[in-house]
Amino acid sequence: MAVYTDVSDSALAAFVAGYDLGAVTAFKGIAEGVENTNFFLQTQSGSFILTLYEKRVAEGDLPFFMALLSHVAKEGLSCPRPVPDRAGALIGTLEGRKAALFTFLSGVSVRRPEAAHCAQVGDALAALHLATQNFPLARPNALSLGGWQALSKTISPRAGELNLALPELIRTALSGLETSWPQNLPRGVIHADLFPDNVLFFQGRLSGLIDFYFACNDFLAYDIAVALNAWCFEGDGSFNVTKARALVGGYQARRALSLAELAALPVLCRGAALRFLLTRAHDLLHHDPAALVRPKDPMEYAGKLRFFLQAPDTGALGL
Amino acid sequence: MAVYTDVSDSALAAFVAGYDLGAVTAFKGIAEGVENTNFFLQTQSGSFILTLYEKRVAEGDLPFFMALLSHVAKEGLSCPRPVPDRAGALIGTLEGRKAALFTFLSGVSVRRPEAAHCAQVGDALAALHLATQNFPLARPNALSLGGWQALSKTISPRAGELNLALPELIRTALSGLETSWPQNLPRGVIHADLFPDNVLFFQGRLSGLIDFYFACNDFLAYDIAVALNAWCFEGDGSFNVTKARALVGGYQARRALSLAELAALPVLCRGAALRFLLTRAHDLLHHDPAALVRPKDPMEYAGKLRFFLQAPDTGALGL
Repeated sequence: MAVYTDVSDSALAAFVAGYDLGAVTAFKGIAEGVENTNFFLQTQSGSFILTLYEKRVAEGDLPFFMALLSHVAKEGLSCPRPVPDRAGALIGTLEGRKAALFTFLSGVSVRRPEAAHCAQVGDALAALHLATQNFPLARPNALSLGGWQALSKTISPRAGELNLALPELIRTALSGLETSWPQNLPRGVIHADLFPDNVLFFQGRLSGLIDFYFACNDFLAYDIAVALNAWCFEGDGSFNVTKARALVGGYQARRALSLAELAALPVLCRGAALRFLLTRAHDLLHHDPAALVRPKDPMEYAGKLRFFLQAPDTGALGL
Repeated sequence: MAVYTDVSDSALAAFVAGYDLGAVTAFKGIAEGVENTNFFLQTQSGSFILTLYEKRVAEGDLPFFMALLSHVAKEGLSCPRPVPDRAGALIGTLEGRKAALFTFLSGVSVRRPEAAHCAQVGDALAALHLATQNFPLARPNALSLGGWQALSKTISPRAGELNLALPELIRTALSGLETSWPQNLPRGVIHADLFPDNVLFFQGRLSGLIDFYFACNDFLAYDIAVALNAWCFEGDGSFNVTKARALVGGYQARRALSLAELAALPVLCRGAALRFLLTRAHDLLHHDPAALVRPKDPMEYAGKLRFFLQAPDTGALGL
């Protein structure tokens, strides 16, 4: 949620001249995306998002993201479609950063999702999973079990600074996941970060998915687990079974979950809660006060993790 | 350059429903305006800027700003025009803040202005001064001589932390201004902050002025002095006489300066340089590291102030 890199009008004009879009009519840095610098760009051809990739996105991953978004858009999903320059390239350079131009999507994120939103999110996740079945590239999930083990090692010595019970909670959750994490569920490309911030709605209908920079290959059902964490808790920390049913129902209407996937959901939800607890704790402990981003509260995910630790099976989730 | 206040989709929808603009199609926090929170808002009727007023803009000043922008737009200047709600009100409330909606202007700020830009800036300043001649409201300039005296008192004890020579520079400049500040120049409404950030250009032509939240009543020629500070120095700190001539020439083509105004320019330029030195030093000394804004460098204006202190008359400015 910051503009890390300033783009001068002359550098912008030179960059845009590489595309077949006419002259720039408006250009505003936007407070979107923790990982990158994003601009709203209007040219004589229409509206676009211009993204400059900062250090948190590995340059080597950009071809995967560009190919994925192009593929998914071609399959009919509403997501930012990379716009090729005159030479056909999807990745350029601007102010010393790798940069890309995307189509602008209509819609607004919802702050307090209702069950009807959750059902559409489930449907969109299933559509994404089906649309990428024959996508040829792959990107491992650095933030799965192995990544959590590594992260927890760097966090453990200081996790107590955030909350005295946190080190024990992380230890318990991680050792449980090490013995129960599934091995053989259907795999494919997942969004892996489908929070309400990353879904646009227009007049109650889902109008687009954005921010694919955690997309990777992993269990498809893990994407549902992330979404259950992100969409189905109330402000008071309670789990909303109606929303969870709507989300999973929306998913299954398009792609039926196997019994093994369904049975794995509680442990996948524990894993997803731990993932966001660990990365938020890491970001808070290593927060640079000069950074233009407010760190998110890791304790929200400590609460969700505790809830899922007490949910032994899908019945406990109301599913 | 930050989003201080988050606006939920439901609060936004309720706010926009008070206007005759159709449904919201896009909504993005933009990194513009140090004083307020600004959003790019697109509805079925077009594009707008939604501004939420934070504590640095006094609520009592809002009617002045709204009336001024409405007046100036009506006079044909390109500036953000306040959009009335269905009841005709220009100021509403959103997320506990006073809020207003403005027309969206095309154009991009220039980073490295050329003389041709400066000429147009001079012309736009003169147009603003003429367009507001019969504007009935007034707002005193809190950041003129009296304001600088007060600011320098709070800064002096710590100015040496920024630069050892700073306390003496401020003292010298201020005592000089106290004896030489003009009394009887033509007065009117001035922008008072017409930096390159606040001027939009489209294909080389000035397309709009923005950010009127320092607008006030003062010497018209003081507005030129601010602009000479903001537009006519090079990155290496040198004063560009060609740009200064273009700016003042552009102004005079529309509104001739009196001999008294011309003769006062050097002292007005010293005042303007001191004004930005003091406010930037204050902002840096009182910077909250948790604030989402990077403070600007006061020493840039120490250099400009030193230049103007050595310029005894308009000839020294090349004018």
